[in-house]
Amino acid sequence: MAPSTPPSSEDLRGFWAVVPAGGAGTRLWPMSRSGSPKFLHDLTGQGRTLLEQTHDRLAPLVGDRFVIVTGRAHEEAVRKQLPGLSGDAVIAEPSARDSMAAIGLAAAVLERRGAEVMGSFAADHVITDEAAFSATVAAAAAAARDGWLVTIGIEPTFASSAFGYIHQGEPLEGHPAARRVVEFVEKPSVPVAEEYLATGRYRWNAGMFVVRPTVLLDLLAERDPGFAAALRAIAAEPARLPELWERLPRIAIDHAVAEPAAAAGRVVTVPGTFGWDDIGDFDSLAGLLGDQEACTVLGDADLVHTAQATGLVVPGSGRVVAVIGLDDVVVVDTPDALLVTSRDRAQDVKAIVAALKESGRADLT
Amino acid sequence: MAPSTPPSSEDLRGFWAVVPAGGAGTRLWPMSRSGSPKFLHDLTGQGRTLLEQTHDRLAPLVGDRFVIVTGRAHEEAVRKQLPGLSGDAVIAEPSARDSMAAIGLAAAVLERRGAEVMGSFAADHVITDEAAFSATVAAAAAAARDGWLVTIGIEPTFASSAFGYIHQGEPLEGHPAARRVVEFVEKPSVPVAEEYLATGRYRWNAGMFVVRPTVLLDLLAERDPGFAAALRAIAAEPARLPELWERLPRIAIDHAVAEPAAAAGRVVTVPGTFGWDDIGDFDSLAGLLGDQEACTVLGDADLVHTAQATGLVVPGSGRVVAVIGLDDVVVVDTPDALLVTSRDRAQDVKAIVAALKESGRADLT
Repeated sequence: MAPSTPPSSEDLRGFWAVVPAGGAGTRLWPMSRSGSPKFLHDLTGQGRTLLEQTHDRLAPLVGDRFVIVTGRAHEEAVRKQLPGLSGDAVIAEPSARDSMAAIGLAAAVLERRGAEVMGSFAADHVITDEAAFSATVAAAAAAARDGWLVTIGIEPTFASSAFGYIHQGEPLEGHPAARRVVEFVEKPSVPVAEEYLATGRYRWNAGMFVVRPTVLLDLLAERDPGFAAALRAIAAEPARLPELWERLPRIAIDHAVAEPAAAAGRVVTVPGTFGWDDIGDFDSLAGLLGDQEACTVLGDADLVHTAQATGLVVPGSGRVVAVIGLDDVVVVDTPDALLVTSRDRAQDVKAIVAALKESGRADLT
Repeated sequence: MAPSTPPSSEDLRGFWAVVPAGGAGTRLWPMSRSGSPKFLHDLTGQGRTLLEQTHDRLAPLVGDRFVIVTGRAHEEAVRKQLPGLSGDAVIAEPSARDSMAAIGLAAAVLERRGAEVMGSFAADHVITDEAAFSATVAAAAAAARDGWLVTIGIEPTFASSAFGYIHQGEPLEGHPAARRVVEFVEKPSVPVAEEYLATGRYRWNAGMFVVRPTVLLDLLAERDPGFAAALRAIAAEPARLPELWERLPRIAIDHAVAEPAAAAGRVVTVPGTFGWDDIGDFDSLAGLLGDQEACTVLGDADLVHTAQATGLVVPGSGRVVAVIGLDDVVVVDTPDALLVTSRDRAQDVKAIVAALKESGRADLT
């Protein structure tokens, strides 16, 4: 594949996209709610929701080879946003059971459909350079065909303490872009992250895995044979989903498969330098959307009047929002709830959501 | 009158209260609007509007001897808030023509009714010690009966640059509390205000005047005979109000009468130490309502969730308001407009109101 020719759905025959569409996006309250989570929103002001953008980005690579895994409560909204999906492209989880169950069930379904390789990409991340993303996915898929569990390692742009890191080792023979993964490491402190960056051997773990479905399930089976068997049983007999689902362990795919597989030397990483953000909170969103000298408006700018203010304003109720003399402020206006905070306190939004639940206002969360 | 016996409506026979109820309270936007100004609002959270509180404070002194001067647009609201007023207790101005026209017309009306003394008190100020206020008014009325234009001089509690000052001179014979006024001075800078306070001879000008109606009109006539004659003509023949009103000069009573009268040695002041605030902006309101260590809520506190925040929150739309990690913040939530600023920028709210008008959103101002 020449670098000037992006990979296509033809080049990636047998490659399927799995899109786990879950998570409440609590730190993006009150935009994101449990009933209407982050991935259903147009957080970048481009007229497409994060889920739609994820689909737009992957469709050139996979055509209609999609499996979206989402909660039952969101199935209708997902189908409405992605009307071109085939009937069996959406798996509706009876309850949230973390990423191993979600991605594992997609793998089991795809194994039965004869998919060669799958790539799992969250529904609520932002990627700016789609051509670079496509090339990276193609490189990952090539390594995955050879039986590796491939994770895409995002080139760090700063010493973030908000992400886990991938410690990469020696190059992988036959796949110039790929390197062996020494280990996955949990979210570090900023000084530790700075050390990681200085070595040049660490990358952000964006939770993007590319793998043969059978390889993924077999890796899971090595650690928890019952789990893998249950997933394959559901895929074989979908009517058993309600019965078997509630017994599946709640565990992230990182802990269930990726970390032990890395320890066993069976994981590789390909580098991603395509401008990635998981929009973890309003600080992250403000950084993604705006420059530091101005007040960024996500929504109808005619509704916002500012004077000597910087930060992010989200006018979401039709009301006029006036902001005066505050730096790095975050104002999120919705019809039933209003958030006012600063970018450096954006992580604490989670606590307000917890407090609302405790005080009997779970209807707002 | 013994200090322990507050003056009553009987003690103050012949004394009338004039209440100019005007001004948009622009710096209290979006609570205060031109269509629903400051005096119609319960800004202190005591269940009574500022107008109602003004009435409550004066009624023990004057019974039903009230004249409220307000804009036509607010006459109905004023009568609704003060249902006990007699039919002729409200003068509805065809247009806003500043305080000399408003208070002067009340004086002309009261002159014809045979009122001996009148006291003019704005509808949108807050006074905490009502007994002290009553005693001060009684002392002012006594001096006014002797023909003086009496202004109540508020004991300054800090070097404010937001108020004009009264420069007081020698004591007035026969009225132990009263002092002659040397001059009125415009709003000073803070350093100048500090010098004023150091001398002990300056007081805040709260715009409270106590005077015989005839004295006031005659003082006006000395400077502008046509103005005084027009006011008396309207009082004699109320049907001429629409015709004559629009020709009256737009001038504040301070410039039209008080300052020249002070220069002529005809003004005295009695001290006021009753806890006064004109609630000029949200900083002033926050200071009045709260302590600096907490976030004060004006309204339904159940709607407000804060974490490490201080300042003032006004939940006014029924929505939940969450404020995190901001000091001295001001958040004012109304059904159609939201203000977010800081206490030290409270004066700049005025500029937002001007900007809204310019941008075609006068409907919100």
